[in-house]
Amino acid sequence: MRRLPERGRYDRAAIDSVLDAGLVAHLGFVSDGQPFVIPTLHARVGEAVYVHGSAASRTLRELAGGIPACLTVTLLDGIVLARSVFEHSMNYRSVVVLGPATPLVEPDEKLVALEAFTEKLLPGRWAEARPPSRKELKATTVLRMPLDEASAKIRTGGPTDGATPDAELDVWAGHVPLVVRALAPVPDPSLRPGIPAPSGAQRYRRPGLVD
Amino acid sequence: MRRLPERGRYDRAAIDSVLDAGLVAHLGFVSDGQPFVIPTLHARVGEAVYVHGSAASRTLRELAGGIPACLTVTLLDGIVLARSVFEHSMNYRSVVVLGPATPLVEPDEKLVALEAFTEKLLPGRWAEARPPSRKELKATTVLRMPLDEASAKIRTGGPTDGATPDAELDVWAGHVPLVVRALAPVPDPSLRPGIPAPSGAQRYRRPGLVD
Repeated sequence: MRRLPERGRYDRAAIDSVLDAGLVAHLGFVSDGQPFVIPTLHARVGEAVYVHGSAASRTLRELAGGIPACLTVTLLDGIVLARSVFEHSMNYRSVVVLGPATPLVEPDEKLVALEAFTEKLLPGRWAEARPPSRKELKATTVLRMPLDEASAKIRTGGPTDGATPDAELDVWAGHVPLVVRALAPVPDPSLRPGIPAPSGAQRYRRPGLVD
Repeated sequence: MRRLPERGRYDRAAIDSVLDAGLVAHLGFVSDGQPFVIPTLHARVGEAVYVHGSAASRTLRELAGGIPACLTVTLLDGIVLARSVFEHSMNYRSVVVLGPATPLVEPDEKLVALEAFTEKLLPGRWAEARPPSRKELKATTVLRMPLDEASAKIRTGGPTDGATPDAELDVWAGHVPLVVRALAPVPDPSLRPGIPAPSGAQRYRRPGLVD
């Protein structure tokens, strides 16, 4: 995936929409000189993006110390098939957020972020599920990264070799769109009888998912 | 996403299948103390995973110098809805590969990797598309990371609070599977007439995709 200049988009609307559509972020940090990249759920609230994890986790403790971090969210939108091997590519939307992550201290702030994580997984879920206990809240570290240093890259459409001599080749060129879809909800085998799946889970939709 | 010990899988078969199913890797490296995480296509060949990019890219040049790197591939398989907010989670498969990336020097080695990238995007494509020219090959840096320090984490199934007092709550619990699907191929508007889409693109399939 070459990083061409025209793929850079820096407006907040583009950044917000990619962050909101993506369910998984990849969080990068350095420990003893070794970079690590871990997948994690993220949620944007206004001008910041949040991640969370166990307060007992070494990773979270290191990050909470304010070390430099990088959070990247990527949505894969398709395969780009060019006439030449060289011009093959992928369609994607990605956002990179740089900056140290700051731990939230106040329980009320943590609750706002946990609501955002929960609502991101399933809108309406915060009102349905049992709220965090004081103990659970204490066991959860929530980190905040402001969007001050965020950038987006977006590639769409087909290959770019239609305007080159390769266009004369007898090779098909175009792209194959990829979409994420939800299947029917699977009830927990130990679910008490008579509890229907929330309507949002019966027909799961969110930004980034196609019907 | 908490990282529970039982989610660790270290066998090579699990690692290979996640690397092969994933189309996008997130590559982490450090530049002037700042970690960066960039999305990139990867391909596994035997005991190593390869990434590539423009030889003119600063990122690729830094990585080719042998600095520590981390390559992570994550496949999102579903949303896990527990009775409590605290136990909400995601189903996923991920692999983390640590170690410096070594640039390939020999053109023949590069061609093997480029074939793997191309065949990963669409099986059979290497034989169809125009091969790289000498100039294109020179303009492409290919990096190799051995799988010596690789680990996998996999979470499957529903929530785990069915065995806790929360099981008595009047809250639906289960999971919503997510799948990636390919749509019909979109021809390049400048495609010469009379060239049909490759059969593999007409009904695009690969590991990690659902029909």
